[in-house]
Amino acid sequence: MEDLYVIKIGGNIIDDEIALFSFLKKFAAIPARKILVHGGGKMATRLAEKMGIPQQLVDGRRLTDEETLKILTMVYAGYINKNIVARLQSLQCNAMGICGADGNSILAHKRVSTNVDYGFAGDIDYVHAEWLGALLHQGLTIVMAPITHDGANQLLNTNADTIAQEIAKAMSNSFDVRLIYSFEKAGVLLDVDDEKSVIASINPLYFEELKESKKIFAGMIPKLDNAFAAIDHGVKKVIIGKAEDLGNLLTGKAGTTISHE
Amino acid sequence: MEDLYVIKIGGNIIDDEIALFSFLKKFAAIPARKILVHGGGKMATRLAEKMGIPQQLVDGRRLTDEETLKILTMVYAGYINKNIVARLQSLQCNAMGICGADGNSILAHKRVSTNVDYGFAGDIDYVHAEWLGALLHQGLTIVMAPITHDGANQLLNTNADTIAQEIAKAMSNSFDVRLIYSFEKAGVLLDVDDEKSVIASINPLYFEELKESKKIFAGMIPKLDNAFAAIDHGVKKVIIGKAEDLGNLLTGKAGTTISHE
Repeated sequence: MEDLYVIKIGGNIIDDEIALFSFLKKFAAIPARKILVHGGGKMATRLAEKMGIPQQLVDGRRLTDEETLKILTMVYAGYINKNIVARLQSLQCNAMGICGADGNSILAHKRVSTNVDYGFAGDIDYVHAEWLGALLHQGLTIVMAPITHDGANQLLNTNADTIAQEIAKAMSNSFDVRLIYSFEKAGVLLDVDDEKSVIASINPLYFEELKESKKIFAGMIPKLDNAFAAIDHGVKKVIIGKAEDLGNLLTGKAGTTISHE
Repeated sequence: MEDLYVIKIGGNIIDDEIALFSFLKKFAAIPARKILVHGGGKMATRLAEKMGIPQQLVDGRRLTDEETLKILTMVYAGYINKNIVARLQSLQCNAMGICGADGNSILAHKRVSTNVDYGFAGDIDYVHAEWLGALLHQGLTIVMAPITHDGANQLLNTNADTIAQEIAKAMSNSFDVRLIYSFEKAGVLLDVDDEKSVIASINPLYFEELKESKKIFAGMIPKLDNAFAAIDHGVKKVIIGKAEDLGNLLTGKAGTTISHE
């Protein structure tokens, strides 16, 4: 099967114009098929402030009321998405920016929670992998904004990490998928205060060992659980590291590689 | 050749939620291939006001400074585009929203003017008709936002009427194209104060007659010149009328049809 890279970048890259340009140059140069999933950044929060719309976070998740959804749709699917596309085009990478409503690519439902009303937050039901594959085979690079829809005229704010994971899983039926999470650290660290203590690779057995010996930072465990879930659903490798190191992440010279091996 | 409808809607429909929904229901029901080109509306102006960015118009054209371009990218390519797509998806119309940077679909250059600096306003050089055709043949309905790019990382604000016309012309090589301009009046009027004086059809000879006898409203002449330019470049028919009458516009029972016949 053909290789496909699904790469997720977050606010730390998106908010830094120079870092973003440098990343996109490396991204554009990847000769294989690729999908870039981007999160948001500080722009949405700043815009909400300017417009006097109070933003609430619960457990690190934004409560998406109607006005906030408007802002996220504008900033994520509009400003950030189209600026990344224009930059990639200037780098001779034929990019197409979409959100989950476009081509019905990602169907989700409004999150149901008995404790907190997350508002217009979407949990993914289905990724239209065949259609995304057809676009890739047309030579297009897909740039996905973290907005989905429910098929009944409701746009939904959806976590970009989850989108990247669900796309990677769904595409695994027809591609050899590598899922790359850009991270603020150089990878999974044995010592959270030592950037040089990156664990090069983790397989399921080693993961159990790390958990039992409590050697890795607790906050990292859900991320690794997700990575193993992706591996269990057919994704070849999940790589966690700094977007700035993209070249080395792809060749295994940097970051942490999670796989069955 | 297969039929293709290129339909342009403007602020009068976009700003009216009920009219927009009613229009999109009729649009979704068209069984042929279709491209919807949308303009802006009052939302961009309102957002600019809220953010304290002064807006300047010269001869009805917005001067697009950097901050205004940000807003237009957010509102046109983000909010309006994605909300139309989500609505069409809910109507079982598999829509995909793009701007001119996506898939390099519309290349433009920054407008050169010796009198006025229009800022980041784009004049179209090229429409990537083959690629748009490939998307249509995948069963997708294209929803185009009035933002283009110059291929060198610059997004550009571009007039939606012009985008619709250039797309219609470029697609005429491989489709029988009907270009429909939604208009605040029921069509081209013989008497500008009488909505019932719609001229059903205009061919080049009749147009000359109308101009000579000064029977039509002067402001209408540039629009008709543009319509005839489209006809001269292979577009089968240009139809001008109310978006609310879409069904009747398509069958020639409403609006003004401009053609060689």
